[in-house]
Amino acid sequence: MRLTERDALDRFRAARVARLATVSAEGQPHVVPVTFALSPGEGDPVAVFAIDHKPKTTTDLRRLRNIVATERVSLLADEYSEEWDRLWWVRLDGAARVLTEPDERAAPVSWLVTKYPQYQDNPPQGPVVWIAVGAVAGWAYAG
Amino acid sequence: MRLTERDALDRFRAARVARLATVSAEGQPHVVPVTFALSPGEGDPVAVFAIDHKPKTTTDLRRLRNIVATERVSLLADEYSEEWDRLWWVRLDGAARVLTEPDERAAPVSWLVTKYPQYQDNPPQGPVVWIAVGAVAGWAYAG
Repeated sequence: MRLTERDALDRFRAARVARLATVSAEGQPHVVPVTFALSPGEGDPVAVFAIDHKPKTTTDLRRLRNIVATERVSLLADEYSEEWDRLWWVRLDGAARVLTEPDERAAPVSWLVTKYPQYQDNPPQGPVVWIAVGAVAGWAYAG
Repeated sequence: MRLTERDALDRFRAARVARLATVSAEGQPHVVPVTFALSPGEGDPVAVFAIDHKPKTTTDLRRLRNIVATERVSLLADEYSEEWDRLWWVRLDGAARVLTEPDERAAPVSWLVTKYPQYQDNPPQGPVVWIAVGAVAGWAYAG
């Protein structure tokens, strides 16, 4: 059954990892796991993730090169269980930009540090990706 | 650190779920979780997954529509842990085709039923996607 947008966003927000799909300028899909945070509060949701270390150039990593080239991303959170009647997933589609300026990075980095204790002593140093979420889709098995 | 191809494929094969990234004809990425199997034996690896129920048409589901349109897919298996020094992922890039003929479906469906006891009484009825793997990439945290 389809999830309501509220339920879908609540599940997504609580997930500890998501998978990010991007596309190259040549149409090649790419998918990587990312730790992420959703913007706090009401209003149009924003998803963010960060690169831990400063890459030599913004386009050093394929996920960033793809985002600079094509902008469109799809982000998935899901839970697998051997009991297939417990499966669910939530997908956010959006437009992404790479933020490298300190004043742009500050808020999203704080959301990530708040969510992940692992970041507390080692906040991410690299670019932040800001995803303006345009569509929310979610599904859970209906028994 | 990069994983060897052997290690990467072993980890991928053992994973119970993967995330499939596809792209529409218009360049929109899409990502969904899939249960999957890798071809047994040596030789160039093939990854397969199936649609549980017969969709009304092959292009009823976005993942299938995208594959028919653009063929290229990226498939990710990864393990998340709150201990970030235990993270790893493996990505397979390949060319996908949708199989609907009974004689083409038989072998991949048998791989899926062998891997998943959940399929034993309820083998998938819908199309099978056959992914000829062209590239294997894998990474594990190096402490």
